[in-house]
Amino acid sequence: MRIALAQLNYKLGDFAGNFKKIQQVIDAQSQHADLIVFSELCLSGYYPRDLITEPHFITQQNAYLQKIQDLTKHTSCAVIVGLVVKNEGHGKPFFNSLALLYQGQQLYTYHKRLLPVYNIFNEARHFSPGKKPGIFTFQDVKFGFLICEDGWAELDNFIYDCNPVDDLTNQSLDLIICINGSPSNIGKQQERMDHFSAIAKRIQVPLIFTNQVGGNDDIVFDGASFILDHQGKMLGALKDFEEDCGVISYDKKGITLNSRINYQPITDVELFYQQSILGLKDYVHKCGFKKVVIGVSGGIDSALTLALATQALGSDQVVGLAMPSRYSSAHSLTDAKALCKNFHVKWYVASIEEELQIALTRFAEIYGEKPSSLTEQNIQARLRGRYLMEYSNQTGALVLSCGNKSELSVGYTTLYGDMTGGFNLIGDLYKTDIYKVAEYFNQINPTTLIPRNIFEKAPSAELAPNQKDVDTLPEYPLLDAILKLYIEGDLLPSEEIKVYQALLQNQEPAFILQIHQMVDKAEFKRRQASPIIRMQRRAFGYGRQFPIAATYPNP
Amino acid sequence: MRIALAQLNYKLGDFAGNFKKIQQVIDAQSQHADLIVFSELCLSGYYPRDLITEPHFITQQNAYLQKIQDLTKHTSCAVIVGLVVKNEGHGKPFFNSLALLYQGQQLYTYHKRLLPVYNIFNEARHFSPGKKPGIFTFQDVKFGFLICEDGWAELDNFIYDCNPVDDLTNQSLDLIICINGSPSNIGKQQERMDHFSAIAKRIQVPLIFTNQVGGNDDIVFDGASFILDHQGKMLGALKDFEEDCGVISYDKKGITLNSRINYQPITDVELFYQQSILGLKDYVHKCGFKKVVIGVSGGIDSALTLALATQALGSDQVVGLAMPSRYSSAHSLTDAKALCKNFHVKWYVASIEEELQIALTRFAEIYGEKPSSLTEQNIQARLRGRYLMEYSNQTGALVLSCGNKSELSVGYTTLYGDMTGGFNLIGDLYKTDIYKVAEYFNQINPTTLIPRNIFEKAPSAELAPNQKDVDTLPEYPLLDAILKLYIEGDLLPSEEIKVYQALLQNQEPAFILQIHQMVDKAEFKRRQASPIIRMQRRAFGYGRQFPIAATYPNP
Repeated sequence: MRIALAQLNYKLGDFAGNFKKIQQVIDAQSQHADLIVFSELCLSGYYPRDLITEPHFITQQNAYLQKIQDLTKHTSCAVIVGLVVKNEGHGKPFFNSLALLYQGQQLYTYHKRLLPVYNIFNEARHFSPGKKPGIFTFQDVKFGFLICEDGWAELDNFIYDCNPVDDLTNQSLDLIICINGSPSNIGKQQERMDHFSAIAKRIQVPLIFTNQVGGNDDIVFDGASFILDHQGKMLGALKDFEEDCGVISYDKKGITLNSRINYQPITDVELFYQQSILGLKDYVHKCGFKKVVIGVSGGIDSALTLALATQALGSDQVVGLAMPSRYSSAHSLTDAKALCKNFHVKWYVASIEEELQIALTRFAEIYGEKPSSLTEQNIQARLRGRYLMEYSNQTGALVLSCGNKSELSVGYTTLYGDMTGGFNLIGDLYKTDIYKVAEYFNQINPTTLIPRNIFEKAPSAELAPNQKDVDTLPEYPLLDAILKLYIEGDLLPSEEIKVYQALLQNQEPAFILQIHQMVDKAEFKRRQASPIIRMQRRAFGYGRQFPIAATYPNP
Repeated sequence: MRIALAQLNYKLGDFAGNFKKIQQVIDAQSQHADLIVFSELCLSGYYPRDLITEPHFITQQNAYLQKIQDLTKHTSCAVIVGLVVKNEGHGKPFFNSLALLYQGQQLYTYHKRLLPVYNIFNEARHFSPGKKPGIFTFQDVKFGFLICEDGWAELDNFIYDCNPVDDLTNQSLDLIICINGSPSNIGKQQERMDHFSAIAKRIQVPLIFTNQVGGNDDIVFDGASFILDHQGKMLGALKDFEEDCGVISYDKKGITLNSRINYQPITDVELFYQQSILGLKDYVHKCGFKKVVIGVSGGIDSALTLALATQALGSDQVVGLAMPSRYSSAHSLTDAKALCKNFHVKWYVASIEEELQIALTRFAEIYGEKPSSLTEQNIQARLRGRYLMEYSNQTGALVLSCGNKSELSVGYTTLYGDMTGGFNLIGDLYKTDIYKVAEYFNQINPTTLIPRNIFEKAPSAELAPNQKDVDTLPEYPLLDAILKLYIEGDLLPSEEIKVYQALLQNQEPAFILQIHQMVDKAEFKRRQASPIIRMQRRAFGYGRQFPIAATYPNP
């Protein structure tokens, strides 16, 4: 049996567009394959959230399901899709399901049994769990089926009442097919492959893992669908961060790869790079934007954002706006200029100085006192935010905000100021990560460079005379170690935890607690942040749901 | 047996503060009662979200649980509390539980069996469901126990695998105790009472329902704890929207009320009024603010916000900021002034005209073209947002944003402009509700009045010459009918749906669809909104989780 793996980039709720992509793959592959395997919820894209509950969702999805079913009438090729199925019995109104379509019929349907409700996942909000193992024989091949979380019951942190993998054990299966909507974050690709490799080996059955690719709001899917033999050996994988298809041949002796299917393990910095580019590209295009505008301060965060944006959208779709004030260093403007020049990006200089002066004067007139340093600093950030939004309102360009995770964590950022923007591609990167990705960028893009000087100067918000980040915050390697342990310490690999603990061993507990409390107190700012591409194991937003008006139980 | 119902206002995660309140009730009531019943998760407050997973949460909670247990050593009174219990077995790491404490011992523990995962609820994220019915005999009284959702299995929309109420049927129970963290929204009080009245009647057992009171971020709890006899008859209820305690006597013949326990059904407009005041008061105080500042435009939204804020915090903690421009009508300033005067609120006039002129000039200088009308309108809103934040930064006052649900639904609002603010007390009120609450306000507060003229003028953003809301939007009664059906039609009472449908029967489907699409497209704005007090059956935010980069499956 020749089996094609189809790894596509879906837009949420866009049944017509998603169908068209599926149709193209069926048209192209049905000559070469006996079965084409798409990914979890491929008709709607994963994860549509409460769109599922909209009255037209299920009727529209089913109309397109029928179209796919009709396509299979004219070919001998079968198709596996992921879809929402109405639950006619007790429980939540829907199932998250897999359907095997063949010659115009829906031959078999399997309902996902484990519904993740942790981190960014919330499937129990919409779905009932399936009750039956996924086992079905098609054309003499006895298949076992899993949908994403079904394969992860063994993990300590989220133990369920049943283990769908156990139910596929000792069933004389020929092949397991696992369809997924598996989001990408640091370490995830390797984790997935290792985990399913252990499963294939344990139950001695080869396994096919399909995933979707592309960005949906803050979540990016890396694709990287893969094939394992019955000993868990990786036979090959589809590309990561792009659409891809691959065909394998299965017979009782095993799996042969029919086409080029390679897999190169990805490094963390490569993942940050690819993920930010794809995440931005998809957000911009799926929302119907063309251009983006970035406030270029001469600092590393906006420089990296601009560099990545040119990769995602092309230089002609990116605009830089430099907004100096009295506190801007001489190099801030020259560095911003060099940056935009290197990247062939159109840019404007819009000094905020005149308006800053007037704002300070007006303030004194209205209240009879001088603005404090905090007030004055925030006025500058908000003038810049307004300038960016003016350009956006006038031209339809999307404003990219450039805050990093270190800043957002401790609240070293101005609401409606530098937080202004509809999307942030680097906001789940800690400051130390930002430098690494920027270095990597220059390494692999030697003709368009982020200027050296931007790396070398001390980080500064430039909102007060000779201000440096270290006046307020610890050095970033120290800060990031504290933040990583506090925000996602429970999810980090133990070797990484040891590194951070070693770095912090001479620090006072009171000092570390102070940073924790800064994180706690900044929750109100993060609540009003734009979507931020998720990169780490735990991102702010849906992945970390904290109250604002609360006492945080620190020691 | 004398039973006290304790309805308190808890701060999330504030174990020390919550314990102190519990202790005071135990000290005061243990002479008059044999059992004191607190509410669901009373040690931490409901709902702590991911705070539950913080390492110190459970240790701190248990330390205070021990203190309560110790208190029971010195009295013959028993205590029922709601708490988080560690799950030592399979499943999610915690239970949402009820414990009966008596003479220093934890005599009995019951784990909540139904975990809501819909609307604003997400308990399956943290808790495992209990498996056993809650039945326990204490001092010759055979009790049945329920925790909130346990009582709601019968409702069509969310059917579970078991029904804890059925498990309390035909068990010869004497009394049912249901502890709750039941948020308040329109219609909820009556719904709760009707629902539990039917339960008591069906299983022929009297029932005690305790709830917490107070605001936690966007969610307000109304209290309104109540007592039903075995025929479902309402015997009495505690106050709504304030802390309260009441004592009843139970013997085999039935329940006697020992103290004043009355219940007056609440109207929708009373609920909006009480809920916004309590929600604001608690957000301000639980976050550690004192003052609030409000941009007063002379319109009804900011007028109502200011009026309610003075009720919540006192006139001396409220500041008004009027920010006229060339497009402000003459009456906008006089009305704002009359408003602030009526409410004895300190106010400032800060014309944005000079800065608007400079912004327009600067724009033309930088880009070589005039700003569009949209750009110019948004500049004004953002200048005002900045002025409000300047005051906030300088004084520590919390900015209240004044957008209503109609505006926020269709995106008739400016990000970082009029959406500026840390909290919004009226943002889940449709514009037609706003007028009703304002009328009600004047009716019950005859000495401090919202000026008549503010009611009578046509709603306008005053951002362009002679601009009126109806230039862009349908008349509000029509708009609100469309919005209510689209956003929460599945949750509305059928009579209400009929009213809206009748109002819309002559409208073109294309026109209605256009409004739906405005709602869909405005999701990106709402994602960056401040917390908004939840009032309706479905509020934006956690209650309605939609993607941004999506095709919405409208017909």
